[in-house]
Amino acid sequence: MSFSPPSDKAMVPFVSVENMMHLIHHVGIEKFLCELTDVIEDDFRRWESFDKTPRIASHSRQGVIELMPTSDGAVYSFKYVNGHPRNTIEGLQTVTAFGLLAEVSTGYPVLISEMTMLTALRTAATSAMAARNLAPSGARTMAIIGNGAQAEFQALAMKAVCGIETIKLYDIDPRATEKTRRNLAGSGLEVIGCCSPQAAIERAEIITTCTADKQFATILTDNMIGAGIHINAIGGDCPGKTELHRDILLRSDTFVEFAPQTRIEGEIQQMPADFPVTELWRVVSGEAAGRCNPQQITLFDSVGFAIEDFSALRFVRARLAGTDLCQNLDIIADPDDPRDLFGMLQRCRQ
Amino acid sequence: MSFSPPSDKAMVPFVSVENMMHLIHHVGIEKFLCELTDVIEDDFRRWESFDKTPRIASHSRQGVIELMPTSDGAVYSFKYVNGHPRNTIEGLQTVTAFGLLAEVSTGYPVLISEMTMLTALRTAATSAMAARNLAPSGARTMAIIGNGAQAEFQALAMKAVCGIETIKLYDIDPRATEKTRRNLAGSGLEVIGCCSPQAAIERAEIITTCTADKQFATILTDNMIGAGIHINAIGGDCPGKTELHRDILLRSDTFVEFAPQTRIEGEIQQMPADFPVTELWRVVSGEAAGRCNPQQITLFDSVGFAIEDFSALRFVRARLAGTDLCQNLDIIADPDDPRDLFGMLQRCRQ
Repeated sequence: MSFSPPSDKAMVPFVSVENMMHLIHHVGIEKFLCELTDVIEDDFRRWESFDKTPRIASHSRQGVIELMPTSDGAVYSFKYVNGHPRNTIEGLQTVTAFGLLAEVSTGYPVLISEMTMLTALRTAATSAMAARNLAPSGARTMAIIGNGAQAEFQALAMKAVCGIETIKLYDIDPRATEKTRRNLAGSGLEVIGCCSPQAAIERAEIITTCTADKQFATILTDNMIGAGIHINAIGGDCPGKTELHRDILLRSDTFVEFAPQTRIEGEIQQMPADFPVTELWRVVSGEAAGRCNPQQITLFDSVGFAIEDFSALRFVRARLAGTDLCQNLDIIADPDDPRDLFGMLQRCRQ
Repeated sequence: MSFSPPSDKAMVPFVSVENMMHLIHHVGIEKFLCELTDVIEDDFRRWESFDKTPRIASHSRQGVIELMPTSDGAVYSFKYVNGHPRNTIEGLQTVTAFGLLAEVSTGYPVLISEMTMLTALRTAATSAMAARNLAPSGARTMAIIGNGAQAEFQALAMKAVCGIETIKLYDIDPRATEKTRRNLAGSGLEVIGCCSPQAAIERAEIITTCTADKQFATILTDNMIGAGIHINAIGGDCPGKTELHRDILLRSDTFVEFAPQTRIEGEIQQMPADFPVTELWRVVSGEAAGRCNPQQITLFDSVGFAIEDFSALRFVRARLAGTDLCQNLDIIADPDDPRDLFGMLQRCRQ
């Protein structure tokens, strides 16, 4: 082959799953979560500088495939992510994802990365950021209802960012609880497996719901929720999938990422279109009040938003510097003369 | 490292730029264009089975970054593509692209591919499909106005699919014409460089416009277009970018890919919202008439649509079978127990 090798611009750094895991350990998982929380909060503080659009979803009977783009005018990102609740039956992930950063000025990709792992971390970091702004001060105990792929990440983010010391676990499948307990051994958290949701939420100041079934479920009913609680609702994140009884929403102050998207996908899909919510960026930037008194019930109705992925990809890109934890991907055709794409193809044959 | 290697499902076949070029030569470029034209036409024939949405564009001063998703209910595809006309000044491509195929039933990607090269081929194949249905019978001469990265692909597709024998070239930059002439030497086409658009279109039955400037340009004026011509308008493909004087549109029968997208991006952005057009799939499937008489001026107002990329990616996937022209990309985290993503991360450290 006599054609010239691809130029630097044509090579896109790629972070594989294996390299992402190495990067997380290289930084340290709790430090990674703390720094990522700060990066996401910084981007929420400049929320108005981003292009925002509800994600573009392709729904099927089995699940959904989504594209989540955003841009701050200098950097563009998107994430490809699926949600297929029944995948686990076949031993597959419910959610897999990858994403990209590109230069707005040229349109050239500058990073492609796995995001299954990274999405778990950014979701946990976003939850921790919300809790830091909304949970009662001095909260030390969190209940986690639904002990699937998100559970440990949520636990460690709340420990590292908010000072949570005790995690109380419940899942309809005791093996999921046992898996989570085992994984959190040695984390420094006190971990208590519980036999009912009621037992799990007793004395918890924060309740995280992250169940996977795609249905209108009622993981929490109104009588379970006492005054002063912060609810971190992760699992109600697409049309037809909710976790909370609507009476809880009526007693809570509800905080969301991007209202137009959350009204379609979040817990508030159960409520009228004018149900009052506060976008979290307004709390972070000081424009709106978060928690006003110790009796208030705060609810973070989290569905995941493109800006969080943007933050996570930028953080990964910065953290890759000085490591060898990426490969170069020959994904951009870059002929010597940009008008001579055909010549590049011809020379490849010679 | 003691963690287990990623499973098969976690590995996504990836076609690099280099492997795409080898695949094209392995098949043979004209055969590749002919087969791809047939695959696109087959998918146009079952147009109604696809999810269709105008592409999702992120516009900036310098250009646009777009995501183009579609699905036929069994297979999902999207393409990432930019359009930055001023990139060439810095020696970069105006258009770069990559794309993906995924299984709708699981959401798992099954192919990731470069698409800068492939987009040039699919655009030419789509033009050839349109010309096969719309150009005057017995057309042997095509003019190409704009001799950039698309020109040779258009020439070879029209030769292979429609029997074009003579190509007449014009570009405001004679070096672009010379590059195209040089690249087409030995192709079997008679290639004539011309000093004016008027000279180029003389005796041409098909006129292809594929200039790159992002502006309302007038590459062709009304008095240049005689009866019986087929115009293959490639370059007017985003808001603010057109090539034809509107009077030409008034005399032509206009055929488009997906009307809601073309009304935003195509030549018909100059026309009222109810300007009559025919979607090309209706001609292909026999529901609408194409060319009705030898005097008619037909115009394919091409902007590029997601289904063409879907067809191209599926064709590449099929053509990869039995070759070693792809790599495996470790882009999907696939723990042994799908609920144990954290355990996978932990075991990576051990």
